[in-house]
Amino acid sequence: MLLDDTIKRIRPLDRSIETEAQQRLDSLTKPHGSLGKLEELARRIAVIQGKVPPRLGRKLLFVFAADHGITQEAVSAYPKEVTAQMTYNFLHGGAAINVLARHHGVDTEVVDVGVDHDFAAQRGLRTYKVRRGTANFARGPAMTRAEALRAVELGVQLAAAEATAQNLFLLGAGDMGIGNTSSAAAILCALTGAAPADVVGRGTGIDDATLGRKIAAIEKGLDLSRPDPNDPLDVLAKVGGLEIGAMTGVILAAAALRIPMVLDGFISGAAALLAQRFCLHVRDVLFASHLSAERGHGLMLEELKQTAVLDLAMRLGEGTGACILMGLIEAAVRIMGEMATFESAGVKEKIP
Amino acid sequence: MLLDDTIKRIRPLDRSIETEAQQRLDSLTKPHGSLGKLEELARRIAVIQGKVPPRLGRKLLFVFAADHGITQEAVSAYPKEVTAQMTYNFLHGGAAINVLARHHGVDTEVVDVGVDHDFAAQRGLRTYKVRRGTANFARGPAMTRAEALRAVELGVQLAAAEATAQNLFLLGAGDMGIGNTSSAAAILCALTGAAPADVVGRGTGIDDATLGRKIAAIEKGLDLSRPDPNDPLDVLAKVGGLEIGAMTGVILAAAALRIPMVLDGFISGAAALLAQRFCLHVRDVLFASHLSAERGHGLMLEELKQTAVLDLAMRLGEGTGACILMGLIEAAVRIMGEMATFESAGVKEKIP
Repeated sequence: MLLDDTIKRIRPLDRSIETEAQQRLDSLTKPHGSLGKLEELARRIAVIQGKVPPRLGRKLLFVFAADHGITQEAVSAYPKEVTAQMTYNFLHGGAAINVLARHHGVDTEVVDVGVDHDFAAQRGLRTYKVRRGTANFARGPAMTRAEALRAVELGVQLAAAEATAQNLFLLGAGDMGIGNTSSAAAILCALTGAAPADVVGRGTGIDDATLGRKIAAIEKGLDLSRPDPNDPLDVLAKVGGLEIGAMTGVILAAAALRIPMVLDGFISGAAALLAQRFCLHVRDVLFASHLSAERGHGLMLEELKQTAVLDLAMRLGEGTGACILMGLIEAAVRIMGEMATFESAGVKEKIP
Repeated sequence: MLLDDTIKRIRPLDRSIETEAQQRLDSLTKPHGSLGKLEELARRIAVIQGKVPPRLGRKLLFVFAADHGITQEAVSAYPKEVTAQMTYNFLHGGAAINVLARHHGVDTEVVDVGVDHDFAAQRGLRTYKVRRGTANFARGPAMTRAEALRAVELGVQLAAAEATAQNLFLLGAGDMGIGNTSSAAAILCALTGAAPADVVGRGTGIDDATLGRKIAAIEKGLDLSRPDPNDPLDVLAKVGGLEIGAMTGVILAAAALRIPMVLDGFISGAAALLAQRFCLHVRDVLFASHLSAERGHGLMLEELKQTAVLDLAMRLGEGTGACILMGLIEAAVRIMGEMATFESAGVKEKIP
C-alpha cells in the first residue's frame, strides 16, 4: 500500500518555472552560461522546488548497512565481518563518509537494515533489520518478496519522516555491505539483459580469480531464479540487497516529495534503476554525482539517462560521491541566490 | 633581482616522503586507491609540504584586475568599462567568485594591477597599478619589459608576504580583465608555436565575426612584435597582460616557497606557461582545477603536463574553478588526517 501510494504520487515535473530560472541566471554578473554545469544544477533544483532562487536547507545522507549471502561464494576482497566493523566506524566518525560529511555540512543517518551482527543500542544507529543479511542468491532467492517490500517501504518511511520534519534541501543515500557490488551488478544484468561477463567489476579490488568466481556466481544466480525485469520487486527479492531496497525506497520518496536526490555510485545506481522501473519519472529528481571507477557504472548511468557531474576515479561507496556533489549543488544554488545582477551591480551588459 | 632570486629558489621536490604518504593512505579504512583523485591530491600536498598528514590552513586567492588595449580591436563581447565595474562588484561581494569563496572558506584579495579607472580608496582593494591597462598589442608591444618585470615581481611580493605572515595552505589566482583571453591565447601561441586560428576561443561569448577579428588581431600582434618563446618576459611584455604577469609572479613564489598553487582556467594557465618557461619545476606545485570550456585550454594543460581534476564546462575566470578545487583539496587532506586506520578502528584488512 505505502509503495503503491508513493509511486502514484510521483508526477512529471512542472517545468513552467524553468524560463524564470534561466532568466535569473542570465541576469547575474557573468557571461551567459559561463558557469556551465553549476548553472544546470541550480536550474534543475529550481524546477524541482518550483522556486527561483531555490531555498537552501538541510543536506541529509542515509548510510544503509546490510550483509550479503553471496559472500559465501568468495566473491569479495574483504571478509563479511567488515560490514559490521565499518558500521561501528561510521558511528565513531572515522570513515571516509564521516570526514566528507563534516567537510560539506551533510548530516548522516546510519541505518542497519540487515547487518548480520547484534549492535548494542547506541547513539546514531537506527536499527531496522529486515533480516540478518540476504541469502546467497547464487543458490536461491536473496530474500522473500515480502522482505523486499519491507526494505523498500522502510526507505520510503525514513525519507518521508525527514522530509516532513525538517527543512530538507537534498537527500542522498550511501551504502555499506560486503558483497553488494555483486548484487548491484546482478540487478543491472537482470533489468537490462547485459551479460555479467560484460559488466561485473572488481568492487573493493578483487583479483582475476575472484572476478571469475564473481561473474560465475552472478550468472548462476540469474539462471536459477530468473528475475522478471518488468517486476522490480521480483528483481530485488531474487538478487538484490536489503540496503539496495531501502535506497530504492528513499529514491521513490524523494521523487514523490519533490526533493532532489543525489546518487552515489554503483550501489545507489542499482537502486535508482529499480526505482526507475517502478516509475520513470523518478529521473526528474536524480543527480548523478560521479562516474564510479566500478565497471558497469557507465552503462547504469546510460540506462538512467543521467550524466555524472564529477569523474574522480572513486569507487568507495558509503555516499562519498554523493556528499561531494551535495556541496557543489549547494554552491550552485548560492550562486543563483547570492550573486548580484547586471542591474544591481551597475555592470554593463554584453555589446549587442 | 627579486625575480632571479625567486627562480633560483625553485628546486625539484624532495619526493622521499611519498612512500610514507601512500602507506598512510593505504592504512585508512577504505579499499586501497578507492578514493581515486582525492588520494592523489592528498599525496601531492603531503609531498609539497613534506608532511604526513599535511597541515591545513588558510586558503587564499588573489583576484587580479587589469585592462587590455587589445579591446580597441573590438575583440570582446563586453565593453572595456566592465573590468572596473566588475572590480567594484568583487569589492561588494556580488560576483561569482565572492559566492564561491564564501562557500568554500577561501579568502580573496582583490588587486588592481592595471585597471584604467581611478578607484576611491576602499576596504578590500589593493592598488598596485603598474600602468593603466596595456597598450593594444596588435599595434605594438603591450607594455615595456620593465613594466612586465614589475607586474611579475608584484605577484612574487604579494604571495611571499602572505606566505610568511600566515598559516598559508593553498594559493590561487583569478583574473578580471576584458580582453584577456586574447592576451592569454597570444601567449599560448607565442610559447608553443600554435596558430591563433587553431586555439583562439570565444572568451565571454563572442560571435563569429568578432572571433574572426580576434584571431586576426592576435596574428597581427604576433607578426608585428615576434615575441621570443625562450624569453617569457619578452612574451609577457609584447602580448601579455598585467594581471597575467602578476599571476606569473604568484606561481613562481608558490613554487619557491613550496605552497600548493591552484590554477583557475585559461588566464591563469597562460601565466603558468610563462612561469614554467622561467623554471620547469614550477609544475610540481601546480594543481589544474578544471578544464575550461575556453578553446585552447586543453592544449595549455598538455603543455603544462597537468590533468584537470574537474570538467564543469565553466569559462568564467575570476578564480571560480580554483576556488572549487581548493574545497576539494581541503577535503582530500582532511581524509588523510581524520580517517581511522584499519588498526585503530578494528576493521579487518583485505583477504590475503
